Formats: sequence, structure tokens, C-alpha cells
Amino acid sequence: MPSLLHLPLDPFSRKIRIVLGEKKITASLAVEPIWERRHEFLSINPAGTVPVFIEDDGTTISTSQAIAEYLEETSTEPALIFGTALQRAEIRRLCNWFDVKFNTEVTEYLLGEKIMKRFLGLGEPSSETIRAGYANIDTHLGYIEYLAEQRAWLAGDNFSLADITAASHISCIDYLGDIAWEDYQQAKQWYARIKSRPSFRPLLQDLIPGTQPPAHYKNLDF
Amino acid sequence: MPSLLHLPLDPFSRKIRIVLGEKKITASLAVEPIWERRHEFLSINPAGTVPVFIEDDGTTISTSQAIAEYLEETSTEPALIFGTALQRAEIRRLCNWFDVKFNTEVTEYLLGEKIMKRFLGLGEPSSETIRAGYANIDTHLGYIEYLAEQRAWLAGDNFSLADITAASHISCIDYLGDIAWEDYQQAKQWYARIKSRPSFRPLLQDLIPGTQPPAHYKNLDF
Repeated sequence: MPSLLHLPLDPFSRKIRIVLGEKKITASLAVEPIWERRHEFLSINPAGTVPVFIEDDGTTISTSQAIAEYLEETSTEPALIFGTALQRAEIRRLCNWFDVKFNTEVTEYLLGEKIMKRFLGLGEPSSETIRAGYANIDTHLGYIEYLAEQRAWLAGDNFSLADITAASHISCIDYLGDIAWEDYQQAKQWYARIKSRPSFRPLLQDLIPGTQPPAHYKNLDF
Repeated sequence: MPSLLHLPLDPFSRKIRIVLGEKKITASLAVEPIWERRHEFLSINPAGTVPVFIEDDGTTISTSQAIAEYLEETSTEPALIFGTALQRAEIRRLCNWFDVKFNTEVTEYLLGEKIMKRFLGLGEPSSETIRAGYANIDTHLGYIEYLAEQRAWLAGDNFSLADITAASHISCIDYLGDIAWEDYQQAKQWYARIKSRPSFRPLLQDLIPGTQPPAHYKNLDF
């Protein structure tokens, strides 16, 4: 059985867990404490990041988008990057939006300060950084709202890797209780549809020691 | 003729210019002053970033990796993302390494402080940030050195999008005169081979007003 080195509240790991779930690929999950910078782990992925996907024969693939593209090329239905070259570009553009822009402007500010800083031994959360993250959430939820008003799913008519990538980041921020869903009805309906997918349900069971997600986090009808 | 909205010293724009050059696709280049946040430009790419590729029929594609994948899927030889799914994953892993990790740890610290801050009207460069960028260069050049010792090109036996992505970032930092090439002989030889490619030569002619690259920057035998 293949395996996945991951962290429960890491959006990039969640992205691959959902991809595996959608494609019905069973993989064993192993938590990798990246802050320990284990020599064996760094020899597999010198970037020191999760997720890392390990095939049965020991072959390793790291970096979430590269793993997602690899699984898309090697596995069966359902396709998650599909359609014309233009439609595929739109899916990849939105993956990049959330993995880079949302990650830099929201995830790192909020998850980084509130959770990761503690594990990395980097001291107390900075309230200034957290405020900056809050201010940026609005732009991004507004963008999801805008897309969800015009399209059935973020990149078009069908569920794609763009939705998976966005929901992976959103779910981590929602775990922190930092999303005012009542202000974003279209985005909320989009997220509710993703929460109800069998591939997504296991993520909602994750618990980080010393933290407690808000009551609505697991609720499919939030 | 298709066109490309770009900035001369932007590594992501350079990546697509090299891809177009390798694939012998002629495109007109138009400088986009992203700091002006033109309404028309933001309606094309709400991320407000270059490059944006515009097809003859007006179709627009943004985000450099998405454009590169699009050009790979729609155009002819030479292939830049090739081989088995595993080899393709390695190419994409390295693209991500430079577009995300190198960009965050080096490009934004050095190019961001020394050049972009002025255009964005964000004040004087921070010497602390610049020092952090300098400290990070060594890790990354060391990694290129390590790869170049083991492989003909960064991702394996053949020139790929990984080399293009790395060289795009490296070339911007080299424009600033910030790379101590004498410490990295293998990396230097790898970069010299890229500099001599016809697709790369035009980039070396770029000049940013008020700046002057070091003497070795344009020199193919540096």
C-alpha cells in the first residue's frame, strides 16, 4: 500500500488526502513532525515539507501540486484536471491562487501564527500578523463568492483540483474559527457541498492537541 | 500574433519568455506596470501579477506555471515537461522549489527590496531583509551545485522546465550582482550552458532604468 507523510492541519497535505479519496486510492497516513527536521525525512525531501507520497516500491514524490499531477497521470477516474488546455490552465491558475496567494496572505499569517509557531518553538503569536491575516480573508472569501456566483464549481461546470485546493486551505482556517460564513452565502454553499463529499469527511475528524475547532467546523449543515 | 504582458526583471515573466523562445513561438512583449493596478489588467488577472499570455483570439492565461503547462499541451517540440510520470513529477517539484521556495527566501528579499519596493512606492530597502536574502542564497546555490554534480541538467539527463524556472530566478539575482559564482563551480557551468541558449540571450539585454547589472551579467564566459 502506498503511504503519505503528512500533517493533519496542513492544507497541502489535505489537498493530497482529498485527491486520494476522490480517486479511491488507499494509502496509509503517517504524521511527519517536520519541525524535528529528521535526517531521513530531509534526505527524501530536502525542502522539509509535507506532503510526501511514497509508492509501494519506495519511490517518493514531494510537493503537493507535483503529487496531484502525478496521481492525475497515473491513476484512474475521476479526472481532476480535465477539459481543454484552456480549462486545464484555469484549474491550475486557481490551484496556484490558493497554494501561493491565499497561503501567503492568509494561511501562513493565521495557521502559521496560531498553530505552527508553537510547534516550531518560535515564540508567541504576533497579534499584528494575525490582524493582517484577518484583513486578507475578506478579499479571498469575496473572490470565492464571486466565482461561486458565476460557476457551479470554482473552475467551471465540474468539481476539480481547484475546488480541492481551495477547500484544503479554507478548512484549515475554518478549524481556527476565523471565517465569518454569514457574510459569504455563495461561498458557504460551495463549501457545504465539498464538506459532504466522502473524500472530505475524514479531514473533519482531525484534532490538534490543545486546540478545539468551533462547533460548526464538523457540521455539514453549518 | 499572441502577446505576453510581462516585466523585464520578473522571474515568472522570464520563465515564459524562455519557454516561448525554446518552442519558437513568436509573441509580442508588452510591459505591464503592475504597481499601477490598471482596472483593465485586473479584470484579466485579478491576482494583479505578470506574466499574462494572450492568444490571438483574445483568450488570456495567467500564472506562470499554468501558462507553461498550457504551452506544453498546445505547442510542438521541444517538450519541456517529459518522460515518465515520475520524471515529470521531478520537473514539477523543482519548478515549485524555485517558484515558491527560492522566490520566498531569496527573490522577494533581494529583488523585492532593491527594485520592486521603489516601483511600488514602499520606501527604502530594509538592510535586515537584504541580509536575510544573502544568507539564503547559499543554501539554494548549494542545492543547484549538488544537483549539477549528479545530473546533466537539474531534473535529469535533459534540459527541462526545471532548468528554465531556476535560471529565471537566478538571472534576476545575478542582475543585482548578488551571486558569488566562484564558490559554486558546478552551478556556474550549468548556468553558463543556459546563458548560451538562443532562448535566453534576449533576457540579458534587459535594462531597468536607474540600475546597472555587473559586468559579468551579460558575459557568456563569465
